[in-house]
Amino acid sequence: METREQLLASGRAAKDAGATILRAGAYKPRTSPYSFSGHGPSALTLLREVADELQMPFVTEVMDTADLDLVAEHADAVQVGARNMHNFALLRAVGGCGKPVVLKRGLSATIEELLLAAEYILGSGNEQVILCERGIRTFETATRNTLDLNAVPYIKRKSHLPVLVDPSHGTGVRDLVTPMALAAAACGADGIMVEVHENPPAALSDGAQSLYPDQFAEMVQALRPVAQAVGRSL
Amino acid sequence: METREQLLASGRAAKDAGATILRAGAYKPRTSPYSFSGHGPSALTLLREVADELQMPFVTEVMDTADLDLVAEHADAVQVGARNMHNFALLRAVGGCGKPVVLKRGLSATIEELLLAAEYILGSGNEQVILCERGIRTFETATRNTLDLNAVPYIKRKSHLPVLVDPSHGTGVRDLVTPMALAAAACGADGIMVEVHENPPAALSDGAQSLYPDQFAEMVQALRPVAQAVGRSL
Amino acid sequence: METREQLLASGRAAKDAGATILRAGAYKPRTSPYSFSGHGPSALTLLREVADELQMPFVTEVMDTADLDLVAEHADAVQVGARNMHNFALLRAVGGCGKPVVLKRGLSATIEELLLAAEYILGSGNEQVILCERGIRTFETATRNTLDLNAVPYIKRKSHLPVLVDPSHGTGVRDLVTPMALAAAACGADGIMVEVHENPPAALSDGAQSLYPDQFAEMVQALRPVAQAVGRSL
Amino acid sequence: METREQLLASGRAAKDAGATILRAGAYKPRTSPYSFSGHGPSALTLLREVADELQMPFVTEVMDTADLDLVAEHADAVQVGARNMHNFALLRAVGGCGKPVVLKRGLSATIEELLLAAEYILGSGNEQVILCERGIRTFETATRNTLDLNAVPYIKRKSHLPVLVDPSHGTGVRDLVTPMALAAAACGADGIMVEVHENPPAALSDGAQSLYPDQFAEMVQALRPVAQAVGRSL
Repeated sequence: METREQLLASGRAAKDAGATILRAGAYKPRTSPYSFSGHGPSALTLLREVADELQMPFVTEVMDTADLDLVAEHADAVQVGARNMHNFALLRAVGGCGKPVVLKRGLSATIEELLLAAEYILGSGNEQVILCERGIRTFETATRNTLDLNAVPYIKRKSHLPVLVDPSHGTGVRDLVTPMALAAAACGADGIMVEVHENPPAALSDGAQSLYPDQFAEMVQALRPVAQAVGRSL
Repeated sequence: METREQLLASGRAAKDAGATILRAGAYKPRTSPYSFSGHGPSALTLLREVADELQMPFVTEVMDTADLDLVAEHADAVQVGARNMHNFALLRAVGGCGKPVVLKRGLSATIEELLLAAEYILGSGNEQVILCERGIRTFETATRNTLDLNAVPYIKRKSHLPVLVDPSHGTGVRDLVTPMALAAAACGADGIMVEVHENPPAALSDGAQSLYPDQFAEMVQALRPVAQAVGRSL
Repeated sequence: METREQLLASGRAAKDAGATILRAGAYKPRTSPYSFSGHGPSALTLLREVADELQMPFVTEVMDTADLDLVAEHADAVQVGARNMHNFALLRAVGGCGKPVVLKRGLSATIEELLLAAEYILGSGNEQVILCERGIRTFETATRNTLDLNAVPYIKRKSHLPVLVDPSHGTGVRDLVTPMALAAAACGADGIMVEVHENPPAALSDGAQSLYPDQFAEMVQALRPVAQAVGRSL
Repeated sequence: METREQLLASGRAAKDAGATILRAGAYKPRTSPYSFSGHGPSALTLLREVADELQMPFVTEVMDTADLDLVAEHADAVQVGARNMHNFALLRAVGGCGKPVVLKRGLSATIEELLLAAEYILGSGNEQVILCERGIRTFETATRNTLDLNAVPYIKRKSHLPVLVDPSHGTGVRDLVTPMALAAAACGADGIMVEVHENPPAALSDGAQSLYPDQFAEMVQALRPVAQAVGRSL
């Protein structure tokens, strides 16, 4: 989330195109301390208002146990990001927050480690855990990360937990997002999480991987027949 | 290829299920010198006979410039395997062999390096180059390799060359082959290369990733609607 | 730290052999929630007592901003572990804790990201940052991690910050710890951090990479001439 | 090798500074077919002449079984490069060539695979195999490769074969070559292989990692006390 207007516009376009859940950040993890890192607490109220106006549930990232109560109070679901997948204090804490948790795979976490991280949350009493494959770090530099879709059917055979795929971070390249979303649907993903921005070149973060609203609408159109081909629906 | 009977049985079953090209090895690259490494020249004649009997074209791997003439004389297409993607003498040689070349991505080759390896073949006068994504080496150990499907739409945007996907090597796990074949089709692959064996547990190599003929037939059935969903056909 | 006796014995042996700083854990990050994860707050008091008895400063890991005040009150220096190198809330917090911070490189963090993580701490007002190379995650499985000693001279040329090397985690194999400690000293490391245990096979964690006290003493003996050869001293 | 003059000058400077073996390329593996790839057969005669004039044995790379007889006839030892470590036909062939073989670790080869590749040569009757660690491919981009020095003590404990280290390719950065050469010596390497060029900025390949002759002389000076510190001599 950058501004109320930006979020409302992107969110409405996404909803009209078929999106069912809104994800937007109040706290934004950044490799450099000098990059835009979100508006923090003040954004949570705005996120709640926008989500209510759009009549969509929203999920947002929590980065610190100290912020969890505030985040869980406003959001419909909380996200533990890739860089915090091994933040065990946070995993235990979200296990007690009473809201569904989207747990993203760490940049260099094995599938087994992702399942064990989920175990921290489950073991703390929260059964609403949703896993998310978002690409791993490899030697390849043409793409930002290597989307490890092997993880999807592997996890579906090992665990009962739902699995999302994030092809935006998993590729880092706008033109690859839709084909990889289709691939994710084809191999059994339970949902797709993508970044959409009204004006990606002006985005304060992740612009290169954000879809234009039109592209998002096209992606949803393309997803329907693929989902249907594997016995699912959108 | 292990025996004429094994190959004929597996090949016929695969053809009946929808396979259009036969791949079988006379020369087999093995990490250890003490593993089964193929029957060599004598297998080439048998492969030709079996392919003719099945009325399928066949592709087989060449591992040394010294064997190329013999291989090219028997096979309909030659394969340069992942471990030889950077064998530049071989790349130049197959560039002059007059047969189509299937070029597999090296275990740690970037997509850019794969395209440059193709350039060796194209630059030697052979325009019939088919690329093959077969998984890359990463830290993940749950699967034999990490199938990098990002490479498929990336290459389709950078190059006019057709791209195959090999989910057998790309996963190393039989149960993951079909879902990943579907994913490959969904993101734009032009073909799927998989291993099929009448009796995988008894296979002399790669048994854990070989499909039973029944599974192969199911995979083909599952592929049809996915291919159709993205505007292709089998 | 497992028990007061174990720590005192290992610590005294290490000190007698030449160790100057004690590192022991009250909070222990574990991939699985079912592994021993440290004794928590109660261990901090014991660690302080043992350190005072040994007359050694001690450093211990902090895993959550909520624990920081307690940890900083007891310890002489705090450690941010590899799995929390991208826990930006924690980085900012230790930037204000008034104690030196040992920052370990993340399992898949680039050297540049390590320097930017340090920037979070420095930018929050704490100039006492010590970096630690502890191995990165690669495809190699013979060792637990790949100790990236390239990072040592690279960082020494880019930054004024001191660099430690942890060959225990960097190899995961007891017999490799001493040769890699020597290598670290030879390429310019400012210190070595190793695990020592009175009885490694009985250790509750990391036993396979812990030195016996005798081996530690031998390592220190071997380090002296290497340090001297590159113009340093122990 | 670029020209006779360049090689003679660099070789003489290196010999004066303490080098004992000359390595220069007649065949040069290049990722792109449009890069300088060596002068081929004609260079072998020149290399022999220069080596004789310098009274140094020389080692040079062989890239194809078809070239092996010619290479082995001229050179004192042959090198199998990283990109050919899994070229099994070549491994078997050099096993019968009667000259010592320097076998470089593949870019993504595990240590175990390197030892098995050596087994191909040993099993073909050639006991003079020298292994060479030259860096592996990882996610790190600050350096060209990640020099895996863990491999040195690991191999020394598993095998009787001598181990060289190539810090030029292992870092790709001139300023890191000397510290990593010292590290290699400290952890037990039996030799160091580095690139030296009279005028690195003008080199036709690998200039960024080539030492100036003065730097090479300084490296040798710095190596002596480190080697001595671990009980070895130059």
